[in-house]
Amino acid sequence: MSHPVSPLAPAAFATLPAIAGLRIATAEAGIKYKNRTDLLVMLFDAGTAVAGVFTRSKCPSAPVDFCRSNLPGGRARVLVVNSGNANAFTGRRGREATAATAEAAAKAAGCAASEVFLASTGVIGEPLDAGRFAHLLEGLAGSAGEDRWRAAAEAIMTTDTYPKVATKTARIDGVDVTINGIAKGAGMIAPDMATMLSFVATDAPIEAPALQALLRQAVEPSFNSVTVDSDTSTSDTLLMFATGAAAARGCPPVAEAGDARLAAFRTALGELLLDLARQVARDGEGARKEIVVTVEGAASDAAAKKIALSIANSPLVKTAVAGEDANWGRVVMAVGKAGEEADRDRLAIHFGEVRVAVDGERDPDYSEAAASAVMRRAEIPIRVELGLGAGRWTVYGCDLTKEYVAINGDYRS
Amino acid sequence: MSHPVSPLAPAAFATLPAIAGLRIATAEAGIKYKNRTDLLVMLFDAGTAVAGVFTRSKCPSAPVDFCRSNLPGGRARVLVVNSGNANAFTGRRGREATAATAEAAAKAAGCAASEVFLASTGVIGEPLDAGRFAHLLEGLAGSAGEDRWRAAAEAIMTTDTYPKVATKTARIDGVDVTINGIAKGAGMIAPDMATMLSFVATDAPIEAPALQALLRQAVEPSFNSVTVDSDTSTSDTLLMFATGAAAARGCPPVAEAGDARLAAFRTALGELLLDLARQVARDGEGARKEIVVTVEGAASDAAAKKIALSIANSPLVKTAVAGEDANWGRVVMAVGKAGEEADRDRLAIHFGEVRVAVDGERDPDYSEAAASAVMRRAEIPIRVELGLGAGRWTVYGCDLTKEYVAINGDYRS
Repeated sequence: MSHPVSPLAPAAFATLPAIAGLRIATAEAGIKYKNRTDLLVMLFDAGTAVAGVFTRSKCPSAPVDFCRSNLPGGRARVLVVNSGNANAFTGRRGREATAATAEAAAKAAGCAASEVFLASTGVIGEPLDAGRFAHLLEGLAGSAGEDRWRAAAEAIMTTDTYPKVATKTARIDGVDVTINGIAKGAGMIAPDMATMLSFVATDAPIEAPALQALLRQAVEPSFNSVTVDSDTSTSDTLLMFATGAAAARGCPPVAEAGDARLAAFRTALGELLLDLARQVARDGEGARKEIVVTVEGAASDAAAKKIALSIANSPLVKTAVAGEDANWGRVVMAVGKAGEEADRDRLAIHFGEVRVAVDGERDPDYSEAAASAVMRRAEIPIRVELGLGAGRWTVYGCDLTKEYVAINGDYRS
Repeated sequence: MSHPVSPLAPAAFATLPAIAGLRIATAEAGIKYKNRTDLLVMLFDAGTAVAGVFTRSKCPSAPVDFCRSNLPGGRARVLVVNSGNANAFTGRRGREATAATAEAAAKAAGCAASEVFLASTGVIGEPLDAGRFAHLLEGLAGSAGEDRWRAAAEAIMTTDTYPKVATKTARIDGVDVTINGIAKGAGMIAPDMATMLSFVATDAPIEAPALQALLRQAVEPSFNSVTVDSDTSTSDTLLMFATGAAAARGCPPVAEAGDARLAAFRTALGELLLDLARQVARDGEGARKEIVVTVEGAASDAAAKKIALSIANSPLVKTAVAGEDANWGRVVMAVGKAGEEADRDRLAIHFGEVRVAVDGERDPDYSEAAASAVMRRAEIPIRVELGLGAGRWTVYGCDLTKEYVAINGDYRS
């Protein structure tokens, strides 16, 4: 289960500052993995607001059900995440495991079970034994510290080859606030959403409904626009916590997502989520290249997104990128199969800055050598102009390599 | 471009009898391949009816456009098929190539251009030089013979590792008629339809509108239920020709698809198309196992088909099958992402005769050894019971192997 670090890993990892009102602890619970952490606990001060976005799978995991039922309360005191087992499709025993974990977590954090949030990632269909780690929660709550974000990102990894961290600051009414985020991804990554767990926290005092609206808005062009293999997980969970600790430094509480004082915060949150989402794509199982597909001139943004995803998910496009082959014919195929309006004879296709096709034919000035040079890069921009309207969208994916097959052909063994 | 023959190739190939009223010729035109045939001509006697079903791609190839415009006439005298170049996304030059080919074919067959049908398969986006083969058509028309079906199937192959042929007989009002069919597939295979060309002929005297209705009906559970990689080609073409020569042996002409005398013919046609479609799936690029996914108990047949395709197209399911891993958790994931109604806690999943999950949990009596034994077979039946309604569908796919990536990462080079 140990794979070489993705060649697309960041050259350097951001160091995440502490977020006041929040403490972190991790442990080696031995749920599945040996000699690594697989348990994360985040503790939040009283008054912390929570927002969340989850998988649209019709077969969600037990922790997703659990979080959904607690979310309307809008308050969080503790988050418990385990890797190695997704607690998905585990039926009654799955619900028993979330209940047992929540009870132990509530006791450790001194809060109600309705203020507990849970996430699990790993194998589907195997019962999760909460007894492996529930007894650890009390000790972890006692030993938790403020600046352990990197350790948190490491504890939630599965087949990820690097931890995913990001941090931003934004000014609200003259006061700087911090937003930190971590994520895990790897396989089963597709919009709405991914085997993707991400946890974001800020010290900004933003009320839960406003936080939910901000998160929902920011997730569309980021986590909901990233795909590794078109497979949507049962477990996708993005939770955001606002401790409100910046209020002590004069930051005004904000109750409305549309509040003009949140402009910079909204931008920073969008950038942070996109950063994390792209890190997920760049660590797609077996990925050696990131594919950035932009569709312009579509009938609508939604049509542009559907076509862009059709391209980014196409096995034939993905294998062509893996083979460094500027095979734009496969891009045409993927445009055609998306089912959205397209006029073959108006299409133009660019790989990077090289226009390879125009007006429905190979560009007469197209240089195969120039296109091949683009294909040798680590990041492959594919841009399609449909010439129909003003719809535009960008999605982020990765190539399909023999390593993807090797990783997933041998996952459980 | 030469790959070892699929382990799923038929143990023996059917020998196809002659169809009266139809002659076949093939040639080495050197369009792309060397030392193999790449041009097929079929000539039909006057009065031959034609029906067709084509790709639903929004970016169809020039030959698809050409066939669509001729189909309403209902009459065919000559079919010209080339492999090596799909004549797709070739703009004005693509239309010029079909026009030039049609003109030469009409002259060779002594018919109108409206009675010509064309198909091309191979690379997309490269102009097709009709001059490479148009001059050969007259000679081929002169030398064509009746019993060259195997040669016809070989001439239309691209990355196929074996030719696909099938034959059936059916009785219409006491007279035996024959149906022969050939197909090519390999990659870019997904419903509606596939990089899939198939040509079917019969001596039955069935009028064009009835033939079209029969074909449309038979294609849904066969070619429209097969997937290799979820990628839909620009070029998919299924044409069926009825020479009517059996009328000379007393077979009555039939004008209505619903005519009770066609019952056996309808069954035989359905079996023949399914046979060819499964041969296509079993020769999917890099395929080592066929996956037969049946979804039962869905809200509707359409919902069952959508869920079955979600399973058969899932890279994670396909790689698990390649790895002989009975990873039913990924089947749950694929059910969940399909977007159709599903109740996690009623799901049951079978691999072959082994029930691995029931009532939303691992089957307590499930034997991993028994499931693993199923996974070692060449044909992997996956059956999902949703427990919601009477909807049912079966789709046919194949596993995803490193060879698929190798073949498609290096197609053009």
